[in-house]
Amino acid sequence: MTEWVPDERIAALKVPTPPGWTDVALADLHGTMSDHAHAEKKAALSALSLMSKEPSRTALVGRMAKLAREELRHLDQVLGHLRARGWELRRDLPDRYAARLLSLRRRDGPAALVDRLLCAALIEARSWERLNLLGEALEADLGVFYAELARSEAGHYRLFVELAAQECPGEDVQARLARLADAEADIIASLPHEARIH
Amino acid sequence: MTEWVPDERIAALKVPTPPGWTDVALADLHGTMSDHAHAEKKAALSALSLMSKEPSRTALVGRMAKLAREELRHLDQVLGHLRARGWELRRDLPDRYAARLLSLRRRDGPAALVDRLLCAALIEARSWERLNLLGEALEADLGVFYAELARSEAGHYRLFVELAAQECPGEDVQARLARLADAEADIIASLPHEARIH
Repeated sequence: MTEWVPDERIAALKVPTPPGWTDVALADLHGTMSDHAHAEKKAALSALSLMSKEPSRTALVGRMAKLAREELRHLDQVLGHLRARGWELRRDLPDRYAARLLSLRRRDGPAALVDRLLCAALIEARSWERLNLLGEALEADLGVFYAELARSEAGHYRLFVELAAQECPGEDVQARLARLADAEADIIASLPHEARIH
Repeated sequence: MTEWVPDERIAALKVPTPPGWTDVALADLHGTMSDHAHAEKKAALSALSLMSKEPSRTALVGRMAKLAREELRHLDQVLGHLRARGWELRRDLPDRYAARLLSLRRRDGPAALVDRLLCAALIEARSWERLNLLGEALEADLGVFYAELARSEAGHYRLFVELAAQECPGEDVQARLARLADAEADIIASLPHEARIH
């Protein structure tokens, strides 16, 4: 079996999305897009929560505010595509993928911030990979939309890894990232395919 | 004593901000602006929470997503003004004003949605009034900023009142608004002046 080499923009990921996810996601595109809308919202909420937790880290605060704005711009765009198809937003469902990854983070001291940033980096990387898969699989306006969205989200993984290095200079960011990425790969392998971003 | 007539853009408010608040707010402008940044963030969070609670109300969902974007644009702007002065964002403090107003809302059935929308309308109205006071009291770039901000926020009160009428046609929106506005006036009168938006 050939080893998977991730796109450099999501370099930390250890495994690709398993074959079959895209078919499930496309079979209920309404569900997938609705979940995607909530995923953009939750990414904004997570950035704002990080900002609130670390108010004195001015660089981080500024980056998170801008990131949250970008995620809400994407939310607005997904909602527009849902409306154009006459599809209601569905209820937000708990995100087992993110919850399991975040449950592994350390809670105290500088390690807590590193882990939070690196979990965010991995979630962004995985989201990017899947938006890209949708962009490749879909046609017409939705194909263009998802391909453009993936392009615009591509820097988020790197943003979080860089912030971890800048804000927590005493931590071994790369070693911790590799370890959390191993865990992320296990989570991806163990979750069933659903019509959701993850 | 002459009766106070509120600006038509915040028509429901029963009392003006008591004299003295502006002096306290200006005496610790760093604190006031930091609180203002968090207030914009909390307004965005509230809009996103309402969106999540009522996913099938497509018009409301779209309005809340756009409102949240606008609030985060303002957050970004306030953070820029803080940075320009070398002022860190301070810790977010509980908002006793909003908590007390929201504690009065009914929790079940269509009344819950009406009350949530009307509380949001009153909070927006009060915020607008105070941003306007800051715009009048401040000079140079900050005076311009707050005056422009107030202009751009002026429609939010009306947005929430209109949504209440549209989404809950069986409710007496005006009567309930007047009643909540009485309560809001009592809360405003009872809280001490602080270097905060409210």
